[in-house]
Amino acid sequence: MSETPEAPLGKRRWAIAEGYIPAWSNGPEPQMTSHETACLLNAGDRDASVTITAYFEDREPAGPYRVTVPARRTLHLRFNELEDPEPIPPDTDYASVIESDVPIVVQHTRLDSRQAENALMSTVAYASD
Amino acid sequence: MSETPEAPLGKRRWAIAEGYIPAWSNGPEPQMTSHETACLLNAGDRDASVTITAYFEDREPAGPYRVTVPARRTLHLRFNELEDPEPIPPDTDYASVIESDVPIVVQHTRLDSRQAENALMSTVAYASD
Amino acid sequence: MSETPEAPLGKRRWAIAEGYIPAWSNGPEPQMTSHETACLLNAGDRDASVTITAYFEDREPAGPYRVTVPARRTLHLRFNELEDPEPIPPDTDYASVIESDVPIVVQHTRLDSRQAENALMSTVAYASD
Amino acid sequence: MSETPEAPLGKRRWAIAEGYIPAWSNGPEPQMTSHETACLLNAGDRDASVTITAYFEDREPAGPYRVTVPARRTLHLRFNELEDPEPIPPDTDYASVIESDVPIVVQHTRLDSRQAENALMSTVAYASD
Repeated sequence: MSETPEAPLGKRRWAIAEGYIPAWSNGPEPQMTSHETACLLNAGDRDASVTITAYFEDREPAGPYRVTVPARRTLHLRFNELEDPEPIPPDTDYASVIESDVPIVVQHTRLDSRQAENALMSTVAYASD
Repeated sequence: MSETPEAPLGKRRWAIAEGYIPAWSNGPEPQMTSHETACLLNAGDRDASVTITAYFEDREPAGPYRVTVPARRTLHLRFNELEDPEPIPPDTDYASVIESDVPIVVQHTRLDSRQAENALMSTVAYASD
Repeated sequence: MSETPEAPLGKRRWAIAEGYIPAWSNGPEPQMTSHETACLLNAGDRDASVTITAYFEDREPAGPYRVTVPARRTLHLRFNELEDPEPIPPDTDYASVIESDVPIVVQHTRLDSRQAENALMSTVAYASD
Repeated sequence: MSETPEAPLGKRRWAIAEGYIPAWSNGPEPQMTSHETACLLNAGDRDASVTITAYFEDREPAGPYRVTVPARRTLHLRFNELEDPEPIPPDTDYASVIESDVPIVVQHTRLDSRQAENALMSTVAYASD
């Protein structure tokens, strides 16, 4: 818990208990397409190898999905664009665990444009080590 | 505080100080029905026995409500569907404490469709041990 | 940091860095009146004496505002209803610090109905001790 | 982790992994102009010298941007008003790290008015030391 100012920023394990990809959208693409995003920040000097596991209500978890966040970069990952090993189905409750080999910071955001006007939500994910 | 990468993810006590079930809705059911959700993630290998207590402004707490979140599963629990020992009244301020016998992660979300367009909010709950 | 399951839930100092009372509203009162709320949960067995201090951009802080949250109760406090020692002006950026003599949990929510459809946001406040 | 009641409130390093300045707006200015805000609270008795670094997906970070938050004051900083050393481009994913020489509290908020009705989101930023 006592990070020095020089310590890498963030944690190596994160959880997003709320997951849901809206099944339809309204408005100009791609900005107004309904989507669910995990924003990953790697403020450190080493590339981050990240694995994502998706949990469901009534089946075994999916994944791992693998992405790299280069050093000093951010990656805004849209869950609806994950394809390998399998897409995450829309209109289905899920949750996710995000693990990295170096500390990162994770924030969760959804833009929901199922009705004419978009709705937004965001929260820092749950951080562990 | 020093969880190893193998430690179960999460905490055993959570609090959601903001609770409110909107009294009416707009839009297609069930997706657009106003609701308040506690998203529970059990990423561990043991089933989680969870009890929920609801607090109000002017009466003693209600509950405990009991649910199980199986190992490696998520449960998106709608507060407006709780029935036993009593339903939570709509249009009433409340708060909740969620306790589990194994570590879980809890996120709080509300979809409010009282007006024509829906509004969303979400936050990781307050974690304790 | 090692609270036992019997320890009181929460912390004694909280901060909400984002504060803003919308200056106008749309929709039926009181539910759709624009408002900013601090949801306080006292899950313990002793009444909580709470003081709130409001910080601004260009003047000294206002307060303390004083409220009591009884044992095993929640209080959803609307900032726009604070009157003593002075109301918080609408359409003005502010922040708040909430201090309690026993542990509580604080969540921050705004309903903004300045346009025809309401927008919502919520986050657990920053917890300290 | 064991702050006394007299300890300065907050932390010295914060991260906002989600950053995005909407490219257009609807509604009366300036309240309804789409914007992204870092709300900084300095509840202590010493002025805070704050530096902000912005991270992107495909280039080196921008900054540092420098602001001062006086003692006992809050500053609601709109990212779209940062100019020196360079503006943050709209419609571009970014993230930010906020560092202060004294403890502060940071909350992240976006008002998105790209469609006719505004959407809001807010979360306490990720705190480190």
